[in-house]
Amino acid sequence: MNDDFYLLEERTGATRSETEKCKSGDPTMFEAFWREMGDRSTIAIPGWQTMSYFSDVGNVCWFLEPEFAEEVHKLHKFVGNAETKGRHVVVGNGSTQLFQAALYALSPPDASEPMSVVSAVPYYSSYALITDFLKSGLYKWRGDAYTFKSDTPYIEMVTSPNNPDGFIRQSVINKEGGKTVHDLAYYWPQYTPITEPADYDVMLFTVSKSTGHAGIRIGWALVKDSEVARKMAKFIELNTIGVSKDSQLRVAKILRTVREGHEIGMDKFFDYGRRLMSERWDKLREVVKSNAIFSLPEFPSEHCKFFGDMCTSHPAFAWLKCEGEIEDCEALLKSHKILTRGGKHFGEDPKYVRISMLDRHEVFALFIERLSAMN
Amino acid sequence: MNDDFYLLEERTGATRSETEKCKSGDPTMFEAFWREMGDRSTIAIPGWQTMSYFSDVGNVCWFLEPEFAEEVHKLHKFVGNAETKGRHVVVGNGSTQLFQAALYALSPPDASEPMSVVSAVPYYSSYALITDFLKSGLYKWRGDAYTFKSDTPYIEMVTSPNNPDGFIRQSVINKEGGKTVHDLAYYWPQYTPITEPADYDVMLFTVSKSTGHAGIRIGWALVKDSEVARKMAKFIELNTIGVSKDSQLRVAKILRTVREGHEIGMDKFFDYGRRLMSERWDKLREVVKSNAIFSLPEFPSEHCKFFGDMCTSHPAFAWLKCEGEIEDCEALLKSHKILTRGGKHFGEDPKYVRISMLDRHEVFALFIERLSAMN
Repeated sequence: MNDDFYLLEERTGATRSETEKCKSGDPTMFEAFWREMGDRSTIAIPGWQTMSYFSDVGNVCWFLEPEFAEEVHKLHKFVGNAETKGRHVVVGNGSTQLFQAALYALSPPDASEPMSVVSAVPYYSSYALITDFLKSGLYKWRGDAYTFKSDTPYIEMVTSPNNPDGFIRQSVINKEGGKTVHDLAYYWPQYTPITEPADYDVMLFTVSKSTGHAGIRIGWALVKDSEVARKMAKFIELNTIGVSKDSQLRVAKILRTVREGHEIGMDKFFDYGRRLMSERWDKLREVVKSNAIFSLPEFPSEHCKFFGDMCTSHPAFAWLKCEGEIEDCEALLKSHKILTRGGKHFGEDPKYVRISMLDRHEVFALFIERLSAMN
Repeated sequence: MNDDFYLLEERTGATRSETEKCKSGDPTMFEAFWREMGDRSTIAIPGWQTMSYFSDVGNVCWFLEPEFAEEVHKLHKFVGNAETKGRHVVVGNGSTQLFQAALYALSPPDASEPMSVVSAVPYYSSYALITDFLKSGLYKWRGDAYTFKSDTPYIEMVTSPNNPDGFIRQSVINKEGGKTVHDLAYYWPQYTPITEPADYDVMLFTVSKSTGHAGIRIGWALVKDSEVARKMAKFIELNTIGVSKDSQLRVAKILRTVREGHEIGMDKFFDYGRRLMSERWDKLREVVKSNAIFSLPEFPSEHCKFFGDMCTSHPAFAWLKCEGEIEDCEALLKSHKILTRGGKHFGEDPKYVRISMLDRHEVFALFIERLSAMN
């Protein structure tokens, strides 16, 4: 199971796959919101539509549905979380595929050594797995960006807010010949204050985290340089000959529903999301406060331009630390039937674990109940 | 542009991408059929559906929609073109992704040399590009299966009916340590007589060629061995964290529409497809017959168990040969504004070109008109 999939609750007699699902960070928390929307975000597609491979033959990304691209531009402008002007939109089968497309686009095709790929500890553990699983001669995972001392070219992954710990990040290397890719999957108002539009060379987003629609498998990159965008599209062409048009059209409808809900002032998705995340974090902090074993990161209060008020971060994952003499936090929690992902997977100490905050209400409630019982 | 995209007709002033589109083998020919179906193959998806990453947590392929898998089984049983009993269905973002998943699954993870990947000439040219574009240490393209003399392990791609030439194929090597993957994208009744259910270890299919829905990006593999299926699913998990659920549900509806149309005896898709392919091949053969420059492959008449009659092949591509002193068939046709893909891309003589037979009516008509004018 991909590392993106971890949470709590072990069921008796569950199969391995079922256990994995229970550990997952599946963003099903937002399902309740979309149920309330009823038909307003429903899409109907007749059998004769979207048959061609091609969506926009004049575009660098020839498989990009123009309606989807338009809604991406409009939503970013509305939320103020990313600069889209003059950027190419490259659509992918989730931001996971776009991460690989970026590695392909930014690595020279004929270097004698593979390009180094790094990220500051603690880093999203799937980066390592995905970079290396095909033993590519183009790029190779080199681990922690802080300890990367080579003078050779590199790609630094900057995840902000960071997975697993939720902090806002900047590049930590800044050497000549270095490239950065900004994974901004969680830079949305339900998770963190929107302080300014992100403005980087390659920025990755995904509908899995922005609206909670993981099963549609749609991500997008905003790319400044035309040649990089062209090579990213080439990767996706060779890898999957483009991206489902149906999924792109469905996401267009969903992004439009989010934006229009805010514009007309009812069913505001980001308000709903922030309220829910804030409630969950309050509950978690309350339990942690009453138990000397654990600690959680503290986030500063900042002015959120989207909400127009001061607010703090409520990350999609809680980066929980076991204090004192406990060395293996994952094992401790497992013995209390709370499945988590241990720190070593993120290049960190096993005193840490990552816990998803995005599961369905009943699963989250069970997690809080079990954690409380450890007092 | 992927090598799957080649056909005729160059427009004056067209951009590079537009020209590529005109050269494409986009299967838009079937669009007219689906338009006639009207709402019968329409699917509606509410905003709250398909949000989770997971589809079937107990399945080796945990992102497989059960409804899609069921329709795959039913359609193969109805058509009689593949044995599905006891097989795992692995869904992919088109058969292109499944081809890569098969290479990953069949290559040892820790061999000193990459696994050799071969296919008999003339082979589908994308195999070479896709196998090598990431310079994987797991597998490497070694070209023509006929000339593969090494005693090392290998994967042989067997495309049947073959792209580009339309012939039914068998494996040509059969050495110990060898694995075969059968790409059966064109083993459907509109293209070729269905003589028996295919019964191989790994069989690839795609909705692009079976029903013409290329833009949905759905393919499936039928896999005998559980461990191979598990590794193929692992590839797709690492590459794209699964496959769009919306697309799977839409394909389920389309496959059901095809099957039920035949069962109730109206709007029979495969009858429609065979009639159209047969008419197009008749027109092409007529033009070629009247012009000594060209020749086409001849196919035997065989008993088709699906239609219950004797019939011949009408492949999705025409493998046209320039006879006599003409060395570069692609260049000759280009000078008459017919864009094709030359033989060398398929490991063959440049006297050959591949021409898609699946384009829209008006494009095909233009092709026939221009070819006729060469007399």
